[in-house]
Amino acid sequence: MSPKITTELLKQLRQVMRNPKYVQEPVQAYIVPSGDAHQSEYIAPCDCRRAFISGFDGSAGTAIITEQHAAMWTDGRYFLQAANQMDNNWTLMKMGLKDTPTQEDWLVSVLPEGSKVGVDPFIIPADQWKRMSKVLRSAGHDLVPIKENLIDTIWTDCPQRPCKPLITLDLSYTGVSWRDKIVALRSKMAERKVLWFVVTALDEVAWLFNLRGSDVEYNPVFFAYAVIGMNTIRLFIDGDRMTDPAVREHLQLDSTLEPEFKIQVMPYGSILTELQAVGASLSPKEKVWLSDKASYALTEAVPKAYQYLTPYTPICIAKAVKNASETEGMRRAHVKDAVALCELFNWLEKEVPKGTVTEITAADKAEEFRSQQKDFVELSFATISSTGPNGAIIHYKPVPETNRTLSVNEIYLLDSGAQYKDGTTDVTRTMHFGTPSAYEKECFTYVLKGHIAVSAAIFPNGTKGHLLDSFARSALWDCGLDYLHGTGHGVGSFLNVHEGPCGISYKTFADEPLEAGMIVSDEPGYYEDGSFGIRIENVVLVIPAETKYNFKNRGSLTFEPLTLVPIQTKMIDVSLLTQKELNWVNDYHQKCREVIGAELERQGRLEALQWLIRETEPLIRVQ
Amino acid sequence: MSPKITTELLKQLRQVMRNPKYVQEPVQAYIVPSGDAHQSEYIAPCDCRRAFISGFDGSAGTAIITEQHAAMWTDGRYFLQAANQMDNNWTLMKMGLKDTPTQEDWLVSVLPEGSKVGVDPFIIPADQWKRMSKVLRSAGHDLVPIKENLIDTIWTDCPQRPCKPLITLDLSYTGVSWRDKIVALRSKMAERKVLWFVVTALDEVAWLFNLRGSDVEYNPVFFAYAVIGMNTIRLFIDGDRMTDPAVREHLQLDSTLEPEFKIQVMPYGSILTELQAVGASLSPKEKVWLSDKASYALTEAVPKAYQYLTPYTPICIAKAVKNASETEGMRRAHVKDAVALCELFNWLEKEVPKGTVTEITAADKAEEFRSQQKDFVELSFATISSTGPNGAIIHYKPVPETNRTLSVNEIYLLDSGAQYKDGTTDVTRTMHFGTPSAYEKECFTYVLKGHIAVSAAIFPNGTKGHLLDSFARSALWDCGLDYLHGTGHGVGSFLNVHEGPCGISYKTFADEPLEAGMIVSDEPGYYEDGSFGIRIENVVLVIPAETKYNFKNRGSLTFEPLTLVPIQTKMIDVSLLTQKELNWVNDYHQKCREVIGAELERQGRLEALQWLIRETEPLIRVQ
Repeated sequence: MSPKITTELLKQLRQVMRNPKYVQEPVQAYIVPSGDAHQSEYIAPCDCRRAFISGFDGSAGTAIITEQHAAMWTDGRYFLQAANQMDNNWTLMKMGLKDTPTQEDWLVSVLPEGSKVGVDPFIIPADQWKRMSKVLRSAGHDLVPIKENLIDTIWTDCPQRPCKPLITLDLSYTGVSWRDKIVALRSKMAERKVLWFVVTALDEVAWLFNLRGSDVEYNPVFFAYAVIGMNTIRLFIDGDRMTDPAVREHLQLDSTLEPEFKIQVMPYGSILTELQAVGASLSPKEKVWLSDKASYALTEAVPKAYQYLTPYTPICIAKAVKNASETEGMRRAHVKDAVALCELFNWLEKEVPKGTVTEITAADKAEEFRSQQKDFVELSFATISSTGPNGAIIHYKPVPETNRTLSVNEIYLLDSGAQYKDGTTDVTRTMHFGTPSAYEKECFTYVLKGHIAVSAAIFPNGTKGHLLDSFARSALWDCGLDYLHGTGHGVGSFLNVHEGPCGISYKTFADEPLEAGMIVSDEPGYYEDGSFGIRIENVVLVIPAETKYNFKNRGSLTFEPLTLVPIQTKMIDVSLLTQKELNWVNDYHQKCREVIGAELERQGRLEALQWLIRETEPLIRVQ
Repeated sequence: MSPKITTELLKQLRQVMRNPKYVQEPVQAYIVPSGDAHQSEYIAPCDCRRAFISGFDGSAGTAIITEQHAAMWTDGRYFLQAANQMDNNWTLMKMGLKDTPTQEDWLVSVLPEGSKVGVDPFIIPADQWKRMSKVLRSAGHDLVPIKENLIDTIWTDCPQRPCKPLITLDLSYTGVSWRDKIVALRSKMAERKVLWFVVTALDEVAWLFNLRGSDVEYNPVFFAYAVIGMNTIRLFIDGDRMTDPAVREHLQLDSTLEPEFKIQVMPYGSILTELQAVGASLSPKEKVWLSDKASYALTEAVPKAYQYLTPYTPICIAKAVKNASETEGMRRAHVKDAVALCELFNWLEKEVPKGTVTEITAADKAEEFRSQQKDFVELSFATISSTGPNGAIIHYKPVPETNRTLSVNEIYLLDSGAQYKDGTTDVTRTMHFGTPSAYEKECFTYVLKGHIAVSAAIFPNGTKGHLLDSFARSALWDCGLDYLHGTGHGVGSFLNVHEGPCGISYKTFADEPLEAGMIVSDEPGYYEDGSFGIRIENVVLVIPAETKYNFKNRGSLTFEPLTLVPIQTKMIDVSLLTQKELNWVNDYHQKCREVIGAELERQGRLEALQWLIRETEPLIRVQ
């Protein structure tokens, strides 16, 4: 992949950074964050400003352009990809390494005295604004909001903001009606004595109203805000989406409802002025609840004295704990997903030796098999289909320039998932279609030991996920190996494949405790730059555990794998497994055989069934 | 132990909370933090204000008294002790439990509108002031500094502030001269572009000047502050301690030194006015570096624009990484300490069956044996000598009212340590002098498995200690058991037995990464309320590890136990140990036998040597 040439673009950007048409005073630095106005991780093409200016299109990264420098901060998943996609104008700032400066510290070190640093106030989260602003101010600089997005001024062929039709979800999928969700939210508001709640995250709007959209690829969300009062509901949304009779019916827009459930539909762009009006109407002690990650623009619309900011909103926390309907939906989705992958791996086993399968065709085939399943909507993220050295690029996505042919000599890593109307999947399997080397098997087995250590962990109620992260690394650490990413993330229910407030990562300390009903991924890995990548990922459900002493009735939790796809036994060095680990693998494969086998049979996919049976043969320890 | 009756005291305190002689306006709540003006954990009797007002004398706890309520926040180590020591006027707030409100939230929930909350600005750390003040203000209340400490106004027999002679430490103990420490500190100051550094923690003053004191029991520190400029050194200290010729010589007070190493000695009480003068002399961009845990009073002495606050000072970080002289001193101290404990346990084994040994006499005997060792100074904390149900009180200290006789029917837990001129020790052993039950052995063995999991852990350079905490719990968690305290704390070198910035705890996220040369404790436990307590504690040194793949040259770390005292094999259920764990125990005991055996022999303590040899017999797995 050749890097994007950005010399001319950076020149243009530096011109507008001084152009009084756009900035009151020249800015000596301009920050281009990753997200959109909703702090989404996955964003619409019109919001891919950081990728436009730099060429680096990974899901996380912040660009800062000064008069002399252009620098990009990203994390371990993207070090290789960013280095490949950016030209020499850019300096890569490897987050998580000891010597990498923070954005603020770097700015302080390179800026001339008394500089102005510009940023779009709709794009920067309020908490980040606060942190940066403080450091910059204490070094004599100023962080200033620039109303017009400066990237947009030079992005001549910027695409339109999408505005696609909505999907309504009935009770059989959601378990709880939107009215009941509003009631629960208002009770949380009453508890905290706040009068208004501003819903800014797209998945929170979608979850609250039991609606889905397709404005953003992979994430079934739509551009909207909501402002919930104790007696009012305002939904800010554009287009003719509210003319759809199914949507009108679902939201009861034409019914004679109690006034407190009557939804007022308003234009998407009117949120700022409406929120300013709410702010102006408040009397002392009346509060407006926002996420501290809401944009600086919206947060500042409410006078400081009336702001009530929390890291996680009550919607975020309620959404994370799946109810019985959602859990059953997730189970169904994972069974269908496993059927598709059994088909795929069976197909790959036959085709790879012919030398005709590439990373791209394998990914396409995976999508084809998934799309044959009931209620399939779309993929849940860009398929990571990578073989050999490409596997070491943690969030690799095959493109024609990098596309590699699968072979019997290289490890193949497939990290993929789908959105079904009943659930979201995310699974990684690492396979060898020939004979893996002893070193490849050794590394794979350490990763597997880490995967099992998390999956089989038993821990007391109230434990935060980050306390489990080291379990996934222990076997790798013992041999001096590690991986530079977290171990797990929350997964939405037909929603974003990455969602808060829980996860399993050494980096997150503000995570909420794990609770029964939460769903996270368990995905340790190992990456050998230039050679191969290994990752084993299941989506797992937090469930109550049975223990001998039950933590003095505090209760115990553990995980149940929802993903039921065989883990390639050919890659396992059985001599490195404990008996407990060996039993875990055999029990897991037995369950795959039973549950997925039954569905393969029901769907008449008999060749894939044979593959499944072969791949789930119990492991035996050779004495 | 009967609780302290506080009805009259609280009445008096509530009177002064309204008395215009002490408060400009009445305060509706008064906060009594745990620490002194240096935010010390261990404090002098004159600073034990929280114990005076409540009766609860554990090492951690904050009292808040309102017109209606009196509440005490403390952590899991002290739930039982606090409940026993406080009368019905007090509500115990169990920190770490889900439903326990924070101090701020509780205040907001109980205070009438527009209340004033008072606190001594010298006693409250600046970071805590900031946090509380913000929450209170946003709820319409005010946090106000009360110059005169209100407890002192009602504490008629409050003892004098101690002012004991100083001990000078030469290079053979410290490895680095105080001049070189000042040079290193100034280079850190230059790096961060600060002109002044304020040393507020007592152990930091002691470490910087290679001096020790005995103003505070167990911690060899003395009441002092220091203010270091790029060309000046000011030491704020009271009494005639600077007339001691050894101290004058050590600090070169009478030599003709380069001016930048000339120490100006000033009265302890003049720190505030001197610091205000420094603050007033600054020009823009000139900064004063303070710990963000320095008192609100001192922090506010420097205008906000000139403050440079960090959670850990450069002295704290430098102090934590022990140099070769300090490490060797710590090794020597631990050998002597082990000799004393072998003598003690040999003595206990003979005496306990007679029924004549109590928790207090056992603790006294431990001190007696320690005091026979070279360079013994004092104990490093109050000996926790506890048998049977008292063992479940995590930071128990035997007093006549609770004193229990050791017997062959109960578990005995001894957590003790000493200050030697060459190092600080802290060791816990749990013993049974009769026949432990299967359940006691089971619990002990899980604790041992956790102890080994941390001690033998291998992890990459740059790992923070809190990521190792769950390793200590995993075996307990599997059976539904846990303990409500952290797993380890930093240990000073002839300094405080608890020191930052590293540790091993699920609670600490701001800890600094572990580095070779740091010294921490490894002390998992299990406590069965009303029955017994188990804890196994070694002090361990962070050392480089050898691994097969060495983290791509990032380097690996592990621990080496400095504590070399046998772990009672009678308490171990060998069938629960893996082969690796069994080997660890046998290797550890082999090392105890070699190193401590040689010293016991050298000291002619032959009976204790026989005991050591018996107690370090290799464990054998019964097939």
